Amino acid sequence: MKIAILGGTGPQGSGLALRFAMAGIDVVLGSRNADRAQEIAQELSNKLVGCLGTISGLNNEDAVSAADEMVILAVPYSAHDSTLLGIKEQLNRKILVDIVVPLGPKPTMVDMPSEGSATEAAQAILGDDIPVVGALHNVSAHTLNSLENSINCDILVCGNDLEAKKKVMTLISKLDVATYNAGPAANARCIEAITPILIRLNISKAVSFSHAGLKIWEPGT
Amino acid sequence: MKIAILGGTGPQGSGLALRFAMAGIDVVLGSRNADRAQEIAQELSNKLVGCLGTISGLNNEDAVSAADEMVILAVPYSAHDSTLLGIKEQLNRKILVDIVVPLGPKPTMVDMPSEGSATEAAQAILGDDIPVVGALHNVSAHTLNSLENSINCDILVCGNDLEAKKKVMTLISKLDVATYNAGPAANARCIEAITPILIRLNISKAVSFSHAGLKIWEPGT
Repeated sequence: MKIAILGGTGPQGSGLALRFAMAGIDVVLGSRNADRAQEIAQELSNKLVGCLGTISGLNNEDAVSAADEMVILAVPYSAHDSTLLGIKEQLNRKILVDIVVPLGPKPTMVDMPSEGSATEAAQAILGDDIPVVGALHNVSAHTLNSLENSINCDILVCGNDLEAKKKVMTLISKLDVATYNAGPAANARCIEAITPILIRLNISKAVSFSHAGLKIWEPGT
Repeated sequence: MKIAILGGTGPQGSGLALRFAMAGIDVVLGSRNADRAQEIAQELSNKLVGCLGTISGLNNEDAVSAADEMVILAVPYSAHDSTLLGIKEQLNRKILVDIVVPLGPKPTMVDMPSEGSATEAAQAILGDDIPVVGALHNVSAHTLNSLENSINCDILVCGNDLEAKKKVMTLISKLDVATYNAGPAANARCIEAITPILIRLNISKAVSFSHAGLKIWEPGT
């Protein structure tokens, strides 16, 4: 299986690339600059020993074309809409996995787009023929890049296309995390907004930890 | 300490009344119907053996007047605004703890008020002199009423008045749960919306549990 990660040169995208490659999945990093993507792909590949998955780098459009079926969007929010407009044609019915959190000027607050959430904005930009699935918003880059530890937080997945959601849940579960169907795309208004609450906890002097994650608590455990 | 729980005759309010009484806190249940409040208070009291806290019942206005400092609003969303308008005068600078989730026609989706969330709507109705704190949205009535088990999920607390939030966090921590300052009242848009996502999981055939809760995951645990 080969996936693309746009914004794969950033900390979140790079961490995901490492984790997916460790799980045996080929990853193509996408960037506006193909040389930069190849350079980071080489750096990340050097960290991998004995993994079945490979990491390569291309410009965003070519990365999308190279992906089998799923493209992860991990760019900063400021580049969210423009990146989508630039790859809409190449997507050609592939699934867009939106992990972008619309952080405001203060990273402890969201600044939601008029569509309600980044995931809903992506669906509006891409139109109904391209399924958009929101996921992986609440996992910190630090957690992803701490390869010596398992990820160990749960992943809420939302979107309006159930089959696409199931495929994304199957993909993400290869990272050895629990995934939950958290309902339609409109629920991204909540799920994306959990991240700044976690950021607030992480920078708070009142709690003794950082890089907090989210878990669904099952009664009796 | 004496607190009031409006809507204390419902499953969420009754469960909280039992838990607070078990923690040694006196609880006055408020209801539109004082006789009904007294009847439920007696039923709940019969379940308590050897607790330091007592449970009594009054109409909403008298329950608010009887509370020392904090009043919990646990009515159905349909009664949220009207109940607040009815007790505004009695509140007289006491803290209003809003636990109401604005569920839509389908309980797996929120139907937020124009203010953004129930907590923000309460603050708008009550004005700036009465601190409103959002909390306890994500704990199921079943969990609260299963007295043989600890609550064991985490409580996100939000609001614009830090001192009021701290008092509410101290109160809730007596239930032997972790409480987190989740930021300003606007974050209730996210926190209230977590509940229908949990409800969705609970009724889903894809997961093996019900009455799910939320926990903040601390790295390394």
